[in-house]
Amino acid sequence: METFSSKLLQTAVEEFSRLPGIGKKTALRLVLHMLKQDGETVQRFSEALMQLHSEVVYCRECHNIADRSLCDICSSPRRDKSMICVVEDLRDVIAIENTGQYHGLYHVLGGIISPIDGIGPDDLNIAALEKRLHNTQEVREVILALSTTMEGDTTNFYLYKKLNAFNIKISVIARGIAIGDELEYADEITLGRSIIYRTAYEATTTR
Amino acid sequence: METFSSKLLQTAVEEFSRLPGIGKKTALRLVLHMLKQDGETVQRFSEALMQLHSEVVYCRECHNIADRSLCDICSSPRRDKSMICVVEDLRDVIAIENTGQYHGLYHVLGGIISPIDGIGPDDLNIAALEKRLHNTQEVREVILALSTTMEGDTTNFYLYKKLNAFNIKISVIARGIAIGDELEYADEITLGRSIIYRTAYEATTTR
Repeated sequence: METFSSKLLQTAVEEFSRLPGIGKKTALRLVLHMLKQDGETVQRFSEALMQLHSEVVYCRECHNIADRSLCDICSSPRRDKSMICVVEDLRDVIAIENTGQYHGLYHVLGGIISPIDGIGPDDLNIAALEKRLHNTQEVREVILALSTTMEGDTTNFYLYKKLNAFNIKISVIARGIAIGDELEYADEITLGRSIIYRTAYEATTTR
Repeated sequence: METFSSKLLQTAVEEFSRLPGIGKKTALRLVLHMLKQDGETVQRFSEALMQLHSEVVYCRECHNIADRSLCDICSSPRRDKSMICVVEDLRDVIAIENTGQYHGLYHVLGGIISPIDGIGPDDLNIAALEKRLHNTQEVREVILALSTTMEGDTTNFYLYKKLNAFNIKISVIARGIAIGDELEYADEITLGRSIIYRTAYEATTTR
């Protein structure tokens, strides 16, 4: 794949293949697709990206990506302001919103504590979360909804220690066997945890 | 995935998800990756694409993407100018070059005859190929290296009829069982063809 007939083409392919999960072959396919489009389409694509990068605003409360200084969720009168769900990034907000099961507020950390990647607590929006809790008496519960990884557990523990100073409930989303999963294929740690943290059987459980 | 917290973000994700094979989830992942990069990186990415689109040159002989009006292959004194290999697009040139088995010239059609997609012979660089053959006496063979699809067969037949007027050999790349493939898993048409177009056994065959 190194024999490109054009330097311009090679540069564009290299830029695309820097994207996560995009190899050289896919990059070439995407670039050739763009080359077949008219100039307007290519310009619109490029401008959407540059405009997002230069004009993006983060909500001053929850640090989610927003168009205004206070995002739609934080400014909605219909959201339950007694709960804050702490997530790693925007994709988690979208995932939780799609469940339709949560009506509180969010707090986007912008990452997770990961010494290997050089990300410490100061690189995340943790001080902002403490400030948020200082400024209001409304919040009664903080739900930690981070990844079930070593980094997620470390961040949970760090947040627990920091937030313990406030008089609020701190909870973690339930870990266990995914709905539809077969027990025999579940890993031992998940299965073990799902036994330890078993809940009372409810005959009317919907899902 | 429809609940985006920002219009700018949504626009960028929509632009990315227009790319072939990129769904909404992947588009969001790519856009969030770009958002984490510094402004220079995003600008370099966008400019590489716009520059390619506005400054790209197609070789006046073979119509491959090039930086000059005559590409490196067409202008190389080491290429065998008695052979032209007709391919659909640039990726096929790269694939054939990577085999190291071909040392002739190319001709890039820029597509394939496909009535369903509204692509007829006039949309391809076929007239240019005829003109090329008119202008030189050097070419002794045209190798048709198109896809083994209905469209590929149609294009092969069209080209065969057009090029028959010239006193040159017209050949098609060999179809058959791929090296490393097991016979029992080959489709019937391929297997059938590979029997019809069998070749004499050579004990020294390398591959």
